[in-house]
Parts: sequence; structure tokens; C-alpha cells
Amino acid sequence: MRAAALELAAEADREVVALCKDALNTALFEPIPVGPAVDSEPQVSREDLACMIDHTNLRPTAVRADIERLVDEAVSHGFAAVCVNPVWVPLARKLLDAAATEVRLCTVVGFPLGADLAPVKADEARRMRDEGADEIDMVINLGALKGRDYHEFVTDARSVAEASKGCVTKAIIEACFLEDAEKVKACIILDSLGYDFVKTSTGFGKHGATEHDVRLMRIATRPSVSVKAAGGIRSFEDALLMVKAGASRIGTSAGVEIVRGS
Amino acid sequence: MRAAALELAAEADREVVALCKDALNTALFEPIPVGPAVDSEPQVSREDLACMIDHTNLRPTAVRADIERLVDEAVSHGFAAVCVNPVWVPLARKLLDAAATEVRLCTVVGFPLGADLAPVKADEARRMRDEGADEIDMVINLGALKGRDYHEFVTDARSVAEASKGCVTKAIIEACFLEDAEKVKACIILDSLGYDFVKTSTGFGKHGATEHDVRLMRIATRPSVSVKAAGGIRSFEDALLMVKAGASRIGTSAGVEIVRGS
Repeated sequence: MRAAALELAAEADREVVALCKDALNTALFEPIPVGPAVDSEPQVSREDLACMIDHTNLRPTAVRADIERLVDEAVSHGFAAVCVNPVWVPLARKLLDAAATEVRLCTVVGFPLGADLAPVKADEARRMRDEGADEIDMVINLGALKGRDYHEFVTDARSVAEASKGCVTKAIIEACFLEDAEKVKACIILDSLGYDFVKTSTGFGKHGATEHDVRLMRIATRPSVSVKAAGGIRSFEDALLMVKAGASRIGTSAGVEIVRGS
Repeated sequence: MRAAALELAAEADREVVALCKDALNTALFEPIPVGPAVDSEPQVSREDLACMIDHTNLRPTAVRADIERLVDEAVSHGFAAVCVNPVWVPLARKLLDAAATEVRLCTVVGFPLGADLAPVKADEARRMRDEGADEIDMVINLGALKGRDYHEFVTDARSVAEASKGCVTKAIIEACFLEDAEKVKACIILDSLGYDFVKTSTGFGKHGATEHDVRLMRIATRPSVSVKAAGGIRSFEDALLMVKAGASRIGTSAGVEIVRGS
């Protein structure tokens, strides 16, 4: 698997190499430092999983009561974060502050298509930070990646990263639409731009996280970058598979079922 | 059908009545002026349809060559507009200007979830207008509608309408997620706010345009408001059904097949 990923990465277009020289040097041309989750078999209990879960409701039809319940559940189960659409960030901030909890507030930018202009995405990220978001999950410019317009791809991802300063940043690569070589290229670039996480999926594409993609993303990034698996993770077994493949954060709307085991 | 729609509208919450007094007076409490498309059987040829088609590519993975082809096809078939994601507006503007065509440039805002903060949607609309968009299709705040927070719903829709001044405005109600009563309420409010069109669907929801929804939206709005049917319209027969139900604009990626009949 690692050899295949390296081969894919080695095929990375010249533009990517030029853009990400430093990251490439570390991540590809030198031996890859293997993250603990890749080759070991971590023993993970339901309780251990709780603090890896981004408790998520991104349905466009969610109402206030849904967000209130989401926050309540996240607080009582000790989830890592709640993840809500931008429109619910002010309410979620208020509720989390009132609960005096360590649960973090995550929101999304350019979601779920990633096809907004870079300055619009950056403005949205800045506003989300100002409204109290702790973590920002942005969708990459998929068309620029597929069209090999790496200048545009980097401009977009960099401007959101800069606008999100102070927040944890996650770049969603929407793997269901990408060839493996494209996934690797995206990960290398996003790593070089300082993203804290690469994330598999929006949950609105053709399919969600796969074990294969998590492994590939884990290998294509340095250990300083974390992997978030999201989309279609419904059970403890699903979540465990993702953690064993290298994910350290799980985006799911089934967090309560996962930690309760029902 | 009209009686049923009136009944639904009559059930509209008091807040809607207060917000839309003028529109309600015209649209509901007086006899509804029937648009020509509702009860007549318009004879529509393939050629007639061309100038009703928004030739659409909103795939997040579209690349430059896809947009170039979209514009070429729209110009050569005389479609009403091309409809592209925001990220492609500058390119599409340049291509349309170079072609010296009457084909209009349509883009989307808050798409496809409608769950961005109102000022973010408004900023995006303003920027799209400044980048040369002629028409702006915005997704309503579905959560506010479903949660009966009409103040929020109106604030959102009004701010986008104001930011889009000079452009044709279309409000996407994403009917697949709504009860009939919610569709009617949304249409009445959007009519009162001066939207030029109400539009059935994003194409990213559970399903696209239905004959039922087009009829309902045609009846729930004054004749000054047009109806755009979008999502899942693949053939001349599909398109004709929508026009007969009251649509005067068709959003589709199958425009060429529809007018050619292949």
C-alpha cells in the first residue's frame, strides 16, 4: 500500500513538485515516518472514540431544536466537537459557552461543492472565526485539482487557511470524485500549506469515507497532519475501521449510537 | 388543484400574513389572475424551448474545457443562459463577451444547502454581480422556513435580493425537502420580496422538479413572478411537461439533447 502511494505521488505533476518542494522532500523523497495508527493495531474502546467524534448535523433542513439536541449530546458524551452549517454557528457558540464545556465548535466553508470564488470562501472563513468557530472544514477547489490548475488550487486553499488563522483547519478533498493520484497530490499540497487535517468527504458526494482513502491520506501526509474520516460512518465497527486505517477524527451524525453501541 | 393551493395558503401562519400583507392581498384574497401557461395547452416546439433553457453545469468537478463547451453550446443553440458555479463566472463572462451573444450568465449563491449566514450569501451575490453575472439563483434558508422563523427567512432572502440589484433573481425553494404548505408560504414571501423567479430544485436534493410542484408554485405566485423548473429534466417530453405546468425557464444539463431530440 505504501509503495503504491509513493508510486502515485512520484507521478505527481511537475507543478506540484515545484509548489510543494519542502513538503515533498519530507513526505516523499525521504523515508516516511509512519504514524502510530498505520501499522499498529490500536485498542480502542467506545469511550476512547468519543473524544474523536465530530458530532455532525449538516442537513439543510435542520431546525433550532436539532442544533440544541446536537450540542446537548456532544456535551454529555464528551465528543470532540459539534459540526454545524454556518447559519447555526452563532446559536451553537452561545449554547456551548453556556454549557462551559470543552466541546469545540466546527463549521464548514465552501460546502459541499467547494466551487465558490477563493475570496468568498476566505471571507466566509473569517466571519466564521469571528462568530466563534474553533474549527473550519473547507472544501477544496475540485475543478482546479482535476484540471491541474495548481496555481488556482493553491490560491484557494491558502486564502482560506490564512483567513482561518487561530482555528483548526481541515481540508475536505471529497475523495469520491478523485483518482488516487489526485488524492495524493491534494494531500501533499494541503500538508505544505499547513492544514491541520485532511478530511475524506462532505457526506454529500457519491460515497463517504473508505478505509482505502484514509490509509492513502495517512501515508500521503506527514504525521503532523491528522486525517478526518467522514460520511457514511454509522457504527462502532465503521468508526474503528477508520481509526485503524489512520483517522484520528470521525465526522458522523451517529455519534451517540457509536459510543452507546445501540 | 387551485382550490387546494388556496386552502394551503390560507393556513399560512400569522407571521407570514403579517410579513406579506400586500402580496397576500393580491395573490390570495383576491381572485388569482391565471398565468397563460396554467390552464391552456401551449404548443411548444423544440426551437421554442431553446430560449427557455438555462444550460447548466454545476458539477463540482467541472474543468475549464467543460465550461468552454457549455458556453459554445449555449451560443450555438440560442439558450437563455449558461448556469455555472461561482468559481467559473469570470471565465464564462469572458467567453460570452467574446462571443457577442445574448446568452445570459447565471450563477448560484448559498448553493446547494442555503445554510450560509445571510451576510455571507449577500456578499457572494454582490461579488457575482460585480464579476458580471446577469442572473443569480439563490437557495433559501430551508431551516428557517421549516422552523417557522420567518423573520430570519425574510432577512436572508431580502439581503440577497438587495445585493443582487440589477440581476435577475431566482429563489430556489428545494421543494423535495418541503411540505406543500411550506412551498406555498415560501413562494408568497419570495413574491412579496420581489424575486423574479421561484425555482423548484438545486439538482442536488432527493429529487428534482415535479409537475405538481411547478403547478403549485405557479398558483402561489403572482403572474409577475416566473417559475424555473430544474433537476432531473432530461428529455423534450420532461421539459414540455414543466412548461405546460407553468414553468417558463428550464434548468438542465441536457439542453442539447432536448432541442436536438436525441
